Amino acid sequence: MTLATDTRADQVADKLEERELDQLLVNDLINVRWLTGFTGTNGLALVGRDLKLFVTDFRYVEQARAQVPDSFEHARGKQELSEEAIKRMSGRVGYDDVHMTVRQFNKLREAVPEGVELVPAGGVVEELRAVKDAREVEAIRAAAALADEVFAEIAERGLVGRTEHEVAVDAEIGFRRRGAAGPSFSPIVASGPHGALPHAVPRQVPIEADTLVVVDMGCVLDGYSSDCTRTYATGEGLSDEMRSVYDLVLRAQLAALDAVRAGVGGRSVDSVARDLIGSEGRADQFGHGLGHGVGLDIHEDPRLSQSVSDKPLAAGNVVTVEPGVYVPGAFGVRIEDLVVVTDDRPEILTSFTKELTVVG
Amino acid sequence: MTLATDTRADQVADKLEERELDQLLVNDLINVRWLTGFTGTNGLALVGRDLKLFVTDFRYVEQARAQVPDSFEHARGKQELSEEAIKRMSGRVGYDDVHMTVRQFNKLREAVPEGVELVPAGGVVEELRAVKDAREVEAIRAAAALADEVFAEIAERGLVGRTEHEVAVDAEIGFRRRGAAGPSFSPIVASGPHGALPHAVPRQVPIEADTLVVVDMGCVLDGYSSDCTRTYATGEGLSDEMRSVYDLVLRAQLAALDAVRAGVGGRSVDSVARDLIGSEGRADQFGHGLGHGVGLDIHEDPRLSQSVSDKPLAAGNVVTVEPGVYVPGAFGVRIEDLVVVTDDRPEILTSFTKELTVVG
Repeated sequence: MTLATDTRADQVADKLEERELDQLLVNDLINVRWLTGFTGTNGLALVGRDLKLFVTDFRYVEQARAQVPDSFEHARGKQELSEEAIKRMSGRVGYDDVHMTVRQFNKLREAVPEGVELVPAGGVVEELRAVKDAREVEAIRAAAALADEVFAEIAERGLVGRTEHEVAVDAEIGFRRRGAAGPSFSPIVASGPHGALPHAVPRQVPIEADTLVVVDMGCVLDGYSSDCTRTYATGEGLSDEMRSVYDLVLRAQLAALDAVRAGVGGRSVDSVARDLIGSEGRADQFGHGLGHGVGLDIHEDPRLSQSVSDKPLAAGNVVTVEPGVYVPGAFGVRIEDLVVVTDDRPEILTSFTKELTVVG
Repeated sequence: MTLATDTRADQVADKLEERELDQLLVNDLINVRWLTGFTGTNGLALVGRDLKLFVTDFRYVEQARAQVPDSFEHARGKQELSEEAIKRMSGRVGYDDVHMTVRQFNKLREAVPEGVELVPAGGVVEELRAVKDAREVEAIRAAAALADEVFAEIAERGLVGRTEHEVAVDAEIGFRRRGAAGPSFSPIVASGPHGALPHAVPRQVPIEADTLVVVDMGCVLDGYSSDCTRTYATGEGLSDEMRSVYDLVLRAQLAALDAVRAGVGGRSVDSVARDLIGSEGRADQFGHGLGHGVGLDIHEDPRLSQSVSDKPLAAGNVVTVEPGVYVPGAFGVRIEDLVVVTDDRPEILTSFTKELTVVG
């Protein structure tokens, strides 16, 4: 299946003028996949106003023929940065300084034809990738639905007495059995005080009763990622603080969801959740951004965070909304949905309940 | 568990003189892990004749305290390339041009103190990593033993009528259930004509009887990888060509194993297998190198190949020996062991039989 469309190279070509470039070299494999549909491990594209060139090596010629639109000229090159592309370069050529290594760049610089000016241009394709088309949303929706099934399976099997590691492995197996390529990141299963670490690594220790367990996971299906977090109770005997923090995080999450729509800035949405959590004196216990884009990569643009500019969200952005409160030495709560930004209320791709759920 | 030892930073310091460097900045995370034992997602080291500095951000300060030897000075810095390290730089400072991106380098170049000369020095740590110490060999041995169990499990469950994809997923599950972090690469299960593609992706098609199936997989355990290939028969009804090619590849593999020892060049070992396969007119059906180093990375130095210099192998290298013959449109055979280079015969870490085995 290719999700790429002929129009993507045109979108890139349109960006060239804005950046005062004649051509753009695209060689990061995720960007190449988005632009051309190609899923192999070696391929690059060179796009100009009147040029759409795709180059891969002998191993992938057939695959490229099947995946890359015919609007691209197909060429066969070496495994390293290809001469086939280099000899077609002219004018101001943008290259991906965010991903290209110094050694690759030095080789490229020595090889380009006279008159070519190499211009750092990382992020051009990423900016376009941030707005998903209908087929991409459908792919992410399918990955999220698959993850929902695995969340349901985990709740069914129970948590108390199993180790965090066992639960994480079961989740990965659940993803693979259902056809996912794998998890979109190493699943987080963090119980009790360990839940206060936002990026906790699952431990070989049994999960106790009457505490909270943060479960954060997603899968990759047809190249697209999903991402979801739920925090479960492992008994009715939670402390009052646990219950009130859960309630606070849920209110913050719902308020942020209400704020997410095209035209609102990513920093503003973060502020909605952050201010609410801050109003109960827990601002310093919410030590990460509210959310991030998800697509071919698990972390991509746009960001919902205080550390980015307040650039307006656009319809077709797919972002997580995941406030958390972490009480050091005690417990943590994080609640995360994956949503599609629209001109109105966002479409929520995660269907698993957010009410505090007891899983024994 | 940390496998790093205090002596590794000394080994790096010894390399500085050879390269005419005053300091080396190590920021590739695999190199950082080798050098310091640190397994987090952000950390770097700066090593000079009288300096061993390790920097990570606030998330990993505790973890670094537990993992990184006390001989390192510990500092806390930002998530980006750290000022803490930059302000300690002086003289000719080697940086990892193979892994550092152009954007990272440009930021570094603007930030270094006056008088610092940045010198491309990719590969210094990789060269040291190629020679494993006893604890590393033990870690790889354990990963290989775990993979052997999964090979046995696959043979037990049978192949005929199951899809390549099912078998690959089962292997990944087998790795995870036994405590591996995951597969060291996406398992290859390639039956019939598909076996003629050295990097075949498992398909959703049932494996047929009376053909050959290439199974190439390994796992990651405590950070170290394993890698093994076996080619199974799915019935007694193989063609004569299949049997003779299997026999040829096995003879080539055994001959190459005989040649592997400290002091012999990687290209020479490749030639032993290649010449034998060539003597039966199938040189052009062996379209990849004979082997590669394995350690914290699944592909590392040294290489056994015609495309490298004939640098002598060293005791403590851990390499694959994996000749293959690929008959387009018909079938493929590859047989691979993971071995430790010694001054005498190599220690073979793969124990699963190499006799042609029928798995129905």
